[in-house]
Amino acid sequence: MYAVAKRLTKWRTLQGLTKMETLKNRILEDGVVLGNDILKVDSFLNHQIDVELFNEIGKAFKEHFKDKKIDKILTIEASGIGLACLVAQHFNCVPVVFAKKTESLNLDKDIYYSEVYSFTKKKSYKVMVSKKYLKAGENVLVIDDFLANGKAMLGLEDILNQAGAKLAGVGIVIEKGFQGGGDDIRGRGIDLKSLAIVDSMEDGRIKFRE
Amino acid sequence: MYAVAKRLTKWRTLQGLTKMETLKNRILEDGVVLGNDILKVDSFLNHQIDVELFNEIGKAFKEHFKDKKIDKILTIEASGIGLACLVAQHFNCVPVVFAKKTESLNLDKDIYYSEVYSFTKKKSYKVMVSKKYLKAGENVLVIDDFLANGKAMLGLEDILNQAGAKLAGVGIVIEKGFQGGGDDIRGRGIDLKSLAIVDSMEDGRIKFRE
Repeated sequence: MYAVAKRLTKWRTLQGLTKMETLKNRILEDGVVLGNDILKVDSFLNHQIDVELFNEIGKAFKEHFKDKKIDKILTIEASGIGLACLVAQHFNCVPVVFAKKTESLNLDKDIYYSEVYSFTKKKSYKVMVSKKYLKAGENVLVIDDFLANGKAMLGLEDILNQAGAKLAGVGIVIEKGFQGGGDDIRGRGIDLKSLAIVDSMEDGRIKFRE
Repeated sequence: MYAVAKRLTKWRTLQGLTKMETLKNRILEDGVVLGNDILKVDSFLNHQIDVELFNEIGKAFKEHFKDKKIDKILTIEASGIGLACLVAQHFNCVPVVFAKKTESLNLDKDIYYSEVYSFTKKKSYKVMVSKKYLKAGENVLVIDDFLANGKAMLGLEDILNQAGAKLAGVGIVIEKGFQGGGDDIRGRGIDLKSLAIVDSMEDGRIKFRE
């Protein structure tokens, strides 16, 4: 079933559909809606990873942010990391920094941190970045797999502000438009590129924003 | 200081040192030893990520495992994910699956799981892979940034056994040889490739195995 869907997606790519249409088809074919607000896309995005698709996503982000100077890519563990690394290849292999969610003997004591409420995990957690890896004046592109209510993004923005770094833009694979985070970010004048915006999932039917 | 070290590393690469020597130099230049057993390499491996270096690492793993059929790459969140994605590009972009450490609304109920003791976090945790993403007979290459006492690897092997998948080999960036996990894995006849094996870190001096 998965293999068939994958071949179908590849075939459609060859037929000249745009990258965003390929991604949207993949979401429709492989995505599983749980309740009205959880979209499971773990067959290609956040448990099993389709490396070729991530490279296509990297190209699409490069196309959108081609006029921006990007010094660094910032993401958040865990599922953002693979995406950010493959995307970075399309931005001259700039360093990727991932915000950590758990304390560890390996993490510096000298960190920027912020509090974030997780919608999928139903609890608050800290996001942390070592002060060594974000510098004042750096142009930072934030990359993540999902954007829902935007709480994680607020945490990353807070950290960038603490560092005096500049948020050059935000690249998101799937925005859950009905949860408001994306509109809030756009409303604040931030250059946000979401490759697919899901505006509703009522009765398990995924509707994209035009 | 970091930039100088990076340029130096690049210069050495150009001078024809092998990839493994480049990695070892980077560990010597940027690595920080804490106590006798913690090696911090978060400037390029597990907090900030050097995407070009990860691609070189991918090439080195491909060179070692070139005669093996690899259907899938398995790693463990979080720091293994970026590495596994970049390595996968050198293995025909096979899918990457990362074992999860935390339960989530997004994770299937139908999972393989195993218990692992974390040396850096000083506690046990569960590693989980959805049954959908590991199949009987698949040839799986396990990729991770660090190998110490080998507990995480035992957890992944347990999961592969439950799935009936085959462990084709293990690719590790830094093995802490003095913690025994690597010798144990080799002793069981598994094809383990560690790009750098640190045999001691006494008084903060890193010594590699020849």
